[in-house]
Amino acid sequence: MKVYVFKSLPPSLWGYTRDIRALWAMEECGISYEAIGFDCGPNGLQDETKYGKINPFKQVPVIDDDGYVLSESGAILLYLAEKSGKLIPRDLKGRAQVYRWLITSLNNIEPFALPILFADMMGDSNPHMKGLRPWHAKILDRFFPEIDKMLTTQQFVVGKDFTVADIVLTCVLRELRKNEILQNYPNIEKYRKHCEERPAFVKVLNAYEDRLGIVRGSAR
Amino acid sequence: MKVYVFKSLPPSLWGYTRDIRALWAMEECGISYEAIGFDCGPNGLQDETKYGKINPFKQVPVIDDDGYVLSESGAILLYLAEKSGKLIPRDLKGRAQVYRWLITSLNNIEPFALPILFADMMGDSNPHMKGLRPWHAKILDRFFPEIDKMLTTQQFVVGKDFTVADIVLTCVLRELRKNEILQNYPNIEKYRKHCEERPAFVKVLNAYEDRLGIVRGSAR
Repeated sequence: MKVYVFKSLPPSLWGYTRDIRALWAMEECGISYEAIGFDCGPNGLQDETKYGKINPFKQVPVIDDDGYVLSESGAILLYLAEKSGKLIPRDLKGRAQVYRWLITSLNNIEPFALPILFADMMGDSNPHMKGLRPWHAKILDRFFPEIDKMLTTQQFVVGKDFTVADIVLTCVLRELRKNEILQNYPNIEKYRKHCEERPAFVKVLNAYEDRLGIVRGSAR
Repeated sequence: MKVYVFKSLPPSLWGYTRDIRALWAMEECGISYEAIGFDCGPNGLQDETKYGKINPFKQVPVIDDDGYVLSESGAILLYLAEKSGKLIPRDLKGRAQVYRWLITSLNNIEPFALPILFADMMGDSNPHMKGLRPWHAKILDRFFPEIDKMLTTQQFVVGKDFTVADIVLTCVLRELRKNEILQNYPNIEKYRKHCEERPAFVKVLNAYEDRLGIVRGSAR
C-alpha cells in the first residue's frame, strides 16, 4: 500500500500532522506500506499540481491501496482497521462505538483543540485567536471531565481494547501537549502517554523524524 | 427505536440542531422511532441530570435501540445505515468513501462553517469571532470550489447514490444557508436544495417545527 506523507515541514507543525495517524494505524494493523513524501512549506504543499491529482483538497495523508485511493485520515483509519480485522470490533454495535469516539474526537474535541494550538503558535500576531482561547478552553472543559472519569475504570475509549478511535483521540490530545489545558485531567494525560508508549507509535515517530531530517525527539 | 431530540429551543438554533440528522436518516432508512423531547434553554439543556445519564456530554441526539445506546450524530447515521442496509454501500471500499465524505463534512467543513454562523449570531457582541470570520471563510474557499466542480458531474458526494454522507454534508451546509458564503458555488447550493426537497427531509422538518411549536417554515 502507498501512503502519501510529509517529508519536510515548518518546525511549528512537527509532530502534529495527520500522516502520523495513518502510519500509526498501518503499523498496528501490520500492513506493509511505502511512504511517499511531499514537501510542505509555510504556505502549504510545494508541489500542488502533482498532488492535486491525488487529492483535490491537497491534504495529507492519502492512501493508495493497489489503485483504490482514499483520503481523510479518519476514513483511512476505519478502512485499514476493517480491512485488516484489527483495531475495531467486527460486529456493528461494537464498531459503532468506535465511530462514536472517532467522530467525537474529530468533531467535538479537535475543532476547539486546534484553535488553541493556533492561538499559542500565533500569539499576539492574531489577537482574535488569542481572544477566543478562553472560550475554546471552556468548551473542552465540558468534555474532558467526563472522559477523565471514564478512564479511571477503562483503559481505552471504547473499553478494554485499543482501537483506531484511540489513535485519533491520542493524536488530537497531542495538539494540546505543550500547553496547560490537560493539566487538570491526570487520567487523560496518563492515557495519552500510555498510547504514545506503544511500539507502533514509537516506530512511526522515529521514522517521521528521520524522514523530516530532524533531531530525535523533536516531534514528540 | 427511541431517539432523544429537542422539544424546545431558542429561536437562534431553530433548524440547526443535530437531531435533524438522525431523524432524517431514520426516515430515509424506514426505521420506526419514538422521539423523546428535551427542553433546551439559552444556557443548554434544562433537565441535565436526567439526560446526563443517557449522554454524559449532554448532547442531542442519542438513540436507544432496544437498550443499545449510541450518541454522536455521525456515528448514529453510520449505525442506522449499516443496520438497515440503506444509504451506504455494503462493500468496504464503497463504505469508506462514505466515511470520507461524512468525516470531511464534520472535520474539514463544519469546524469553519459553525464559527461563521456564531459570528453572524453574535455580531458586535463578540468582536473576536467577527474578526476571525474572513479567515474561516477563506479556509472554506479551499474546499468548496472542488466540491462545486465535482457536483457538475455527479449528483451526490460519493457518486450517483444518496448516502448518509449527503445528510451530514447538507446539514453542515445549512449552517451557511442564511449568509453569503455559498453564493459563489451554484452547484453546491443546487445540491443542498435538491437534498432538502427529499420527502424524508420535508417530513422531518415539518415534525420538528410542530414539536417545537413554531410556525411552518421557521426552521427551513
